Amino acid sequence: MREIERRCLQALIGIVQNIYDQMKAGQVPELHIATRTKHNIEFNEESEVWVYGDRKSVRSAKTVKGAYRILKMTYVIGFLKEQLNLNKSSTLRELYYISEGWGAAKFEEQPESDRLVEDLEILTNFQREHFHIRPEEDGATVIGPLRVREETRRGVREIHCQDDVGEGGYQIPVNVDRIEFVDHDAKFVIAIETGGMRDRLVENGFDEKYNAIIVHLKGQPARSTRRLLRRLNTELNLPVVVFTDGDPWSYRIFASVAYGSIKSAHLSEYLATPAAQFVGIRPTDIVKYDLPADKLTDEDIKALNAILTDPRFDSEFWKKEVNLQLEIKKKSEQQALAKYGLDYVTDVYLPERLAELGVV
Amino acid sequence: MREIERRCLQALIGIVQNIYDQMKAGQVPELHIATRTKHNIEFNEESEVWVYGDRKSVRSAKTVKGAYRILKMTYVIGFLKEQLNLNKSSTLRELYYISEGWGAAKFEEQPESDRLVEDLEILTNFQREHFHIRPEEDGATVIGPLRVREETRRGVREIHCQDDVGEGGYQIPVNVDRIEFVDHDAKFVIAIETGGMRDRLVENGFDEKYNAIIVHLKGQPARSTRRLLRRLNTELNLPVVVFTDGDPWSYRIFASVAYGSIKSAHLSEYLATPAAQFVGIRPTDIVKYDLPADKLTDEDIKALNAILTDPRFDSEFWKKEVNLQLEIKKKSEQQALAKYGLDYVTDVYLPERLAELGVV
Repeated sequence: MREIERRCLQALIGIVQNIYDQMKAGQVPELHIATRTKHNIEFNEESEVWVYGDRKSVRSAKTVKGAYRILKMTYVIGFLKEQLNLNKSSTLRELYYISEGWGAAKFEEQPESDRLVEDLEILTNFQREHFHIRPEEDGATVIGPLRVREETRRGVREIHCQDDVGEGGYQIPVNVDRIEFVDHDAKFVIAIETGGMRDRLVENGFDEKYNAIIVHLKGQPARSTRRLLRRLNTELNLPVVVFTDGDPWSYRIFASVAYGSIKSAHLSEYLATPAAQFVGIRPTDIVKYDLPADKLTDEDIKALNAILTDPRFDSEFWKKEVNLQLEIKKKSEQQALAKYGLDYVTDVYLPERLAELGVV
Repeated sequence: MREIERRCLQALIGIVQNIYDQMKAGQVPELHIATRTKHNIEFNEESEVWVYGDRKSVRSAKTVKGAYRILKMTYVIGFLKEQLNLNKSSTLRELYYISEGWGAAKFEEQPESDRLVEDLEILTNFQREHFHIRPEEDGATVIGPLRVREETRRGVREIHCQDDVGEGGYQIPVNVDRIEFVDHDAKFVIAIETGGMRDRLVENGFDEKYNAIIVHLKGQPARSTRRLLRRLNTELNLPVVVFTDGDPWSYRIFASVAYGSIKSAHLSEYLATPAAQFVGIRPTDIVKYDLPADKLTDEDIKALNAILTDPRFDSEFWKKEVNLQLEIKKKSEQQALAKYGLDYVTDVYLPERLAELGVV
């Protein structure tokens, strides 16, 4: 077992020990866990990310429901202990099915076991990757002037993300902390929402011309992708820019990269890249470039209004852009730039925007 | 330009030539294209796949709508000619946006340009990959004892799909025909629906123990994934087995691998693997292994009834299984096997099933 996993296991066992001690002292056992809503996230000045505030929820065995929750937690910790000792791992989905054999501690549905794993993350200050719990999610691919060393079950692999991969790029593993950055020749990192645009930049040799590391976000990015971006930013000191469609869902993608997501604010310091910059598409671009656009739907309008009250978007830039979008009632996709030809995005749009930001 | 692309371009120009000749002869130009519905697919005994029958639809300039269709086709062919000459490529989405600059030939919505590309495939007997039109779709990953040589824009790359990749595997490119199989040590290919199960087999070393090539289908497989499976089957003579969840949508995934899909029956001889065998969760397994299961929804029941009249599923095996499922009204996922522990699928379930089929 690696040192970090040993400490993680100790923290897990500490939870059970605490429950045991309470019972031994004749108390009804209870646990205190940070409340996970948008009303309980606050900005941490030091780390520049959004984290949970002081509000706590109590899980107490005083109620039947609370008692079951604590029972299930002890079963899960028992399973994780065995798993870590055997150096195995499992998916969130498998964990849910494994509980089939636990009698009264069986989970009713997967969201229940998912939430319990989140509780354990918050209680231990470790991440589910340390518990060896894998998501179903599918990590990003990387192409660019970067050499990584990945520790796999089959030995160590050293891979250059341009020279040793096909055009599909390097597929990042679920646990990004198994990767070490060996060396690189990059000036910045560009994270891209859609596969079509990622392929466009690769075809046009954008990574080679601008020494850029191209990361495909695949829509709302998986944890492993966000972790990779943060590591590229903090360890290699590379600027990170995020290139998405111009609609509220895409702004949320940017926010989850830059500020952390509400659902996993306990992990913001591990996953968020506060220095990340947004390179588009902006509502002002829809006007300026006269981009092909679709009408906003009712859901889009609702999501834009929600952004106006989301503390993560409390800036002049976002207020102006979101209000403009509500006014023009339009949204555009990044591939809409193809209106001006296939090379416009790499020859004109991105170089201009990146120069404005001082990235190139 | 490669030889195959030169021939493809000739075929595209032939369509325009034909339209031109009809007009020059004083005729109203028209085109005849196979009808793409489930009533016009038939089994080709020789190639053992489902292909379009003799029903044709006519696109004639006699109507305003038909005239526009022919106009748009000539614009698209003009664009493809330029693209092939420049050795560029574009996505289906980009093609739709590019038409913004075509005045009256502008597409109203993307499904219209997508269908036109399908028309061109049927008329020319080439595939959109030859036109250099890329999908948004995201190809599969491969891990196993196989060495490939990929021709990229940055030179040729030789990659062993166990030794030269991380745990994420080798990301296959959009155009699988740019890959050459160099050598291999594999006994069979296993294509897997979900990422969680793919990761389970990789973690348990299934590819090493059984000399298996593990391909992740990522749900309904992309064309490139189906093309890869066909090539592994026909060129390397490897058996292909498909491991999915036990519900009607998963049976359709199997069918699209084995028999071809209705929407792209003109490509069946290029994409389908008629020898593929189903090792996925069967309704009989749900009963036999007492698997954790969900109730069928109304949509599930409708989809199962549709399968009973789908010519691709006209066999004793599928009739029996589908009828059993309608009777027990349950469906199960492949990860439900975790009920018996994390290794059950690789230690018991798959070895038993593969032995029954004579694969191991």
